[in-house]
Parts: sequence; C-alpha cells; structure tokens
Amino acid sequence: MRNGDPTVGIGILGAGTVGGTLVRRLVDDREAIQAKTGIDLHVRRIAVRDPAKPRAFHVPAELVTDDPGLVVDDPDVQLVVEVMGGKDPAGSLVHAALEAGKPVVTANKELIAAHGAELIALAERRGVPLLFEAAVGGGIPIIRPLAETLAGEQIERVAGIVNGTTNYILTRMGDGDDYADALAEAQALGYAEPDPTADVSGADAAAKAAILASLAFGTWVGSDAVPFEGIDRLRREDIEFARFLGYEVKLLAIATRTAAGVCARVHPAMIPAGHPLASIRAATNAIFITGPSVDELLFAGPGAGGEPTATAVLGDVIDAAREILAGAVVAPRIRFSPGEIADFGGVATKWYVRLEVEDEPGVLAQIAAAFGEEQVSIKSVWQEGEGSGATLLIITHRAAEARQRSAVESVRALDVVRSVAATLRVESPEV
Amino acid sequence: MRNGDPTVGIGILGAGTVGGTLVRRLVDDREAIQAKTGIDLHVRRIAVRDPAKPRAFHVPAELVTDDPGLVVDDPDVQLVVEVMGGKDPAGSLVHAALEAGKPVVTANKELIAAHGAELIALAERRGVPLLFEAAVGGGIPIIRPLAETLAGEQIERVAGIVNGTTNYILTRMGDGDDYADALAEAQALGYAEPDPTADVSGADAAAKAAILASLAFGTWVGSDAVPFEGIDRLRREDIEFARFLGYEVKLLAIATRTAAGVCARVHPAMIPAGHPLASIRAATNAIFITGPSVDELLFAGPGAGGEPTATAVLGDVIDAAREILAGAVVAPRIRFSPGEIADFGGVATKWYVRLEVEDEPGVLAQIAAAFGEEQVSIKSVWQEGEGSGATLLIITHRAAEARQRSAVESVRALDVVRSVAATLRVESPEV
Repeated sequence: MRNGDPTVGIGILGAGTVGGTLVRRLVDDREAIQAKTGIDLHVRRIAVRDPAKPRAFHVPAELVTDDPGLVVDDPDVQLVVEVMGGKDPAGSLVHAALEAGKPVVTANKELIAAHGAELIALAERRGVPLLFEAAVGGGIPIIRPLAETLAGEQIERVAGIVNGTTNYILTRMGDGDDYADALAEAQALGYAEPDPTADVSGADAAAKAAILASLAFGTWVGSDAVPFEGIDRLRREDIEFARFLGYEVKLLAIATRTAAGVCARVHPAMIPAGHPLASIRAATNAIFITGPSVDELLFAGPGAGGEPTATAVLGDVIDAAREILAGAVVAPRIRFSPGEIADFGGVATKWYVRLEVEDEPGVLAQIAAAFGEEQVSIKSVWQEGEGSGATLLIITHRAAEARQRSAVESVRALDVVRSVAATLRVESPEV
Repeated sequence: MRNGDPTVGIGILGAGTVGGTLVRRLVDDREAIQAKTGIDLHVRRIAVRDPAKPRAFHVPAELVTDDPGLVVDDPDVQLVVEVMGGKDPAGSLVHAALEAGKPVVTANKELIAAHGAELIALAERRGVPLLFEAAVGGGIPIIRPLAETLAGEQIERVAGIVNGTTNYILTRMGDGDDYADALAEAQALGYAEPDPTADVSGADAAAKAAILASLAFGTWVGSDAVPFEGIDRLRREDIEFARFLGYEVKLLAIATRTAAGVCARVHPAMIPAGHPLASIRAATNAIFITGPSVDELLFAGPGAGGEPTATAVLGDVIDAAREILAGAVVAPRIRFSPGEIADFGGVATKWYVRLEVEDEPGVLAQIAAAFGEEQVSIKSVWQEGEGSGATLLIITHRAAEARQRSAVESVRALDVVRSVAATLRVESPEV
C-alpha cells in the first residue's frame, strides 16, 4: 500500500438502478468494507443525466454532475465505474479513462460484447485493469471463475439461462399466461423495460453469450458473431405441447468449442423436464460450464436487479482498488488468440416442428420424404385433432441447422401442409 | 512482465492423485496454457515420497526428489505448490516457502483450517500470495468468489454439501444399501480412503466449513471452533423414515452469522425433499451462499477427484504466476477482524427423534411433558408398530441445541422409553 493510505477515489458514471444502489452501498457500507478489505473506498464524483432528480443515496451535492467527462478527468478519481449502459457515450468514456491510466469497472455487456477486444487490449497497453463481472449473470460470480479459476481448463461448453426477464416471462407462460400478459406482468414488476426489445429479442442474451464464449475459449467472439432468436414469437401452445412431450422451453445461450471452431448462439429451446435448467424459474439465471477435467459446474442465482448487480460491481471495485493500492497491475486476466468461428449452419440439433396439415392418407409419407431428402430423419410424430385438418408434432433426429431449415422449407411447400405453425430446437443435456 | 520473459518456475510438493494430475497437465498443456494466459509454467522440481514409483507423468528423472526442502530452496522455483496434504511436514514447508518470499498454492484444507490465520498473515508480511481455491469444493470455484467477487456483500450464511465421499455413501444408503456396504463401495471406487475416518467422521467437512466461515464473515474460525458429527452412526432405517416424512438426509456444513456471533457446524441433517440440496447425488458438492443483496447463489460440481482439484490448483498457479510476472503482489485478498464465535448450544434447529417405547396409554403424554420442561415443543408424532413395543418418530419445533439435548436426556430417563434409537437435526431452507 503506497504511503499506507488506504483511500481510493471512485468516480461513477450513471446512477440508475445499479449505479444508485452502488453509491448507496459505497457510502453506507464504507466502514464495513474497510474492516473486511483494508481499503477505504471514497466516492469522489458521480455523473447523472439529471442532477436535480431525487436519489436513494446521500452525498454532498457538489459530487454530482451532469458532465461525465468531469468524472473521468477528475484527478481525485483513481478508478472509474461505468454503469450508464449502452455503447455511446459509455464507450468513449471508458476509452478515455483507460487511456488516462485509470482502472475501469463496468457492468455494460453491450459495450464489452461489441468492443471488448479493443478495450481489453487498450487496458493491457496502459497497464490497468478493466473488470466486468457484472456484465453477465448479475450477482452470480461467473466472469472471474471463467477467466481465472478455470484458466487452466480446456472448456468445451458454456450453456445456460442468462436473461432473467425472458425466463420470468417463460415461467409465467408455463403457468398458463399468454405472451402479452406475461410481458405486461414482467414490466409491472420492473423485470422488463418499457421497451422490452433487447430482452425479448434475445439481443441481451447474445451479448452475454459473446462474452462467455470469448472468455471460455480464449478466442474473441464479438456480438456480431452470435446468431440470436428471442421469445417474442413463442406461442403458449408450443410451451404446452413441449410439456406434453416431456420438455420445458427456455431461452438458452450456448457456447461450444468443436473441431469446426467456436460457436455461440441464443434461441429458445426445448430441454428435457428432468434437466436442472428446466426447473430454473422466474428471474433466476443458471449457467453450466463443461470441461474434460471439471466435468460440469453449475452457477445459479439472481441474474438481474440493482442489489445483486451492484454486489458484482463492488467486488470488481475492491479488486481494482487493491491493485491501485499495491501500485501494480495484475489484470488483464486473459489474452485472446485468433480462432475459427464455426458457422451456425453446421451446428447439429434436434428440431421440434408443429405442422397444420390436411387430414388425409399419405400426408406423413410426403412429409417424411421431404425431411429425408435433406438427410433429416424423424424421431417421433404425434397427431392432434381429426376431421378437416390435423396438427402434427414432429421431433427430428439431430441434423445440421442448415439441413433442418431446408427440410422445413421443403415441408412448407407441400400441398398437404397448410402451415408450419412453429419450430423450436431441442437440446439434450449432452449437446 | 519483467524482461519480457514469461517463464515461471514451479516446484511441487507431492505427486499423489492431485499432484500427479497437476504435473501431467502442466507438462502436457504447457503450450495451450501459454497461448491462453501468456505465461510459460515450467515445472522445475517435484518432491515425492518414493522417487522410484512409476508415475502418470513424464519429466526428466533429475526433477524428482524425495527431499521436499530441496524444492522450496531451489532458486529456480519461484512458486511452490503444496499438494502433499496433512499438517506436517506440509505446514513447515509452506511456512518456509512464504518466509523465503515465494508464493504458495495449496489444496490442503486441513492445514489452512488449522493454521490459515498465521499463514495468511505471514504471506501478507512477506508480500506474497497464499492461494487455496482447491481446499474447498474440489473443482468448484468457491474460495475466490467468496473472498473477491463477494467481498462487498454482508454474507449471512454459507451452507451445503462439501464432502463427496459421504454424499456418495448417503446416496447409496438412500438407494437401499447399508452403511457398511455403501462405504465398501465408496472405497472400491476410490471415493473413500482405506481409512475413511476423516470423511465419515465429518472432520474433513468441518475443516472446509471453518475455511468457508472465515472467508464469508471475515472473522477467523479455526477448525477447533467447528463442532462436527459424521455419518458413521447413521442407520438406513432413519434415512427411510426421513424419506417417509418427506425429507432426505445429507451431511451439511453450515456457517451462519447471527447477533450472537459467527458459527460453523457440520452434521447430518434432514432437509425437505424439494430443497435443491436434497437432489444432489453421489460425489457432487453444492454450496449455497446467502446475503441481503445477492439473495441466494448456488455453486455445484465435482467436489473431489484428481482432475477437478488439479484444475482449481492450476487456476491458482496461473494467478500467482501472473503476480510474479507483474512484479507485484495483490493478494492476500482478505483480512480478518476479531469477532465472536457463537456457541453451538445456542443454535436453534428442529430435531427428529426416534424412540423405542412401551406401547401403553399415557406414553406420549410423559414424553411431551419431558420435552416441554425444556421448552421444546413437539411439531408432529408418528407411531410405527404395535403390541409389546412401538416406535415413535417425533419432530420438534425449533429450539436451541442445548435444550434439545437436555430434552432428549430427560426422555431417555423415562421408564416408558426403552431407547433413544436416533436423533437428527432438521434443517428448513430458511434456517
């Protein structure tokens, strides 16, 4: 500790749900944190959009500014916490702080997934830590275990539920709500934003999948490289049919390393009802890490919310402050090697396909033939309804994404098929 | 990185299950680790009991010695890994390495639980890291999340299954095996040692509970301060009765912070069948961390075995090597404040009591009165059997340990009670 002074000056960009909670805890728990860590975390400056707005924390008014540049430039600010979110202006502020040789802690998954490689490289050049535990999994420690504790493991797969909002909506739909009602309830509870697009489209989960894949495999996977589908087109019927077939529907983020390269993707999927992820309810997140030595590790907990996320930010702040006081930098924790990004079209999964068909002899034969032409074979078929039309629920054997899609297009073109009402990927535990 | 040389010389004390796996991976994965971390981990010297014994790794013969002091003293060894286990001579070797200013990574829960406070203080004085992720939870990252990521959380409770051997035995007993058969099977599979005392007595779990409590609460809880009971007196009948009552029996490590102080304990307990810990089978470990901000976090995975444990050691080795190359030390990660250790006698739980009694009128009244005199009230009673004798299964309401024990002694002294056949604590999720 330089000069024995345990004080570290903190500047905070943003005082919304996470930032406001963080400031309150830095102020209220200052003595408790110093007792436990030996570090005196001192809030020096806070940038907010509207300084006049009432806040849940109590700090002298002169600490609050609407100019985030003042926070970064303040010589008393030794460590910058970015909790404003979004790519701009967060990105240029983080960039400026790192350039100025100030450690940065951020909860901004969007920024890290889009520009993490450059920012991590900049942090390394400037010799300062850039920490982002809170970017994935809210209060669940997952970034640090991946980047540090498991640095010696050849991780094969990271998969799980990384968006609490959509898991809440799916849980409600499983309990009988329609999508619109479930979304409205999630909004009323504060789980979903007034504009829920980032969550329900899968974009938020895709950013997290990009970060998890990059850290797990040591090859940078930008968010552009993560195909994603959301839950906004999911129908309650398919959740009910899934359950009838012994599955639950979850929005999964899946990152794998195969011979073809690394691959990350986000989409709703049917998983067997007995799989541990099937029983993860409401806004909880749960992530499995698989590797040859550790077999399977599970991390679960609250995936969002001000308090859990602020806890993760605070852990990073303490870590960065420790490095400041030690007068040395040990982070960044990982380096990235060039690597192949596997094409999603080559990823093999099973598919569930719901078809509205004519109820006449030979229909199934035509459908099976259409699948067969794409080398997709049918594992099981259930027929619902009779009379003028029928519903077929088909589960295929494993086949590449591109073949499954072609097969479904061929089926759609058949005269006996009135519509392809739904498709969902089916993930078995070992995929 | 000093001089740009990324090499760190490693000395290893012990090449048993964990040490042998570690050496093999350090040798085989050397390039992969360097690609991912930028660090060249170079095994310089290995101390073993019998250098002539065949090993699963390939290193030049001159690296292997039967003198562990040579490893610690070797000027080419910059980092010492202690995986020999036991308090002696491991303790004096770790002490010597730290005194010499060499970072130490250890998997030795017994040593850390007994002498962690002094060793951590010594490491701090000498300005070197002492890391022990592998001491608890095998391959599950739990030490670092507790000490770092959750450094800003006021943790209230850490509870879980931290001994894979006993969980395997309990799983077999739940499937119908007797204790002796289940133990023999665990030994045949290598889960249990030829002398299984440390595992089945609860001592191993108590050492882990001491470490978890110390890190969670920031007050040092030595292993002497952890009361423990094992599974060696458990009867298959009680596992069956527990299941009949809607519970599973698990060996739990529980650390709590209350107004009376911090408390850690290890004992078998009945937990509701619907609780997530009830479904943790075989040698898996699972640990819940509870706090006001993070609510409840779950960490689960393989709790023992050479590969997972070596992975945790390797993560620490990479971390310590990074600090060596940075020319600075950021660890130790936590400091301990004096605090009260709460007396186990004051800890309140529910109890399950199995009594063999005379089958005559008024028996229950006498038993209830004996409990009542100690302010222990009975929640439910089941009677099994009829005729000359009967079995009573009693579950009490929550009361302090000391009162439950006194009540059971009073009941034992009753003429109508032939024997107190078993007692077990009952843990509800919220305890």
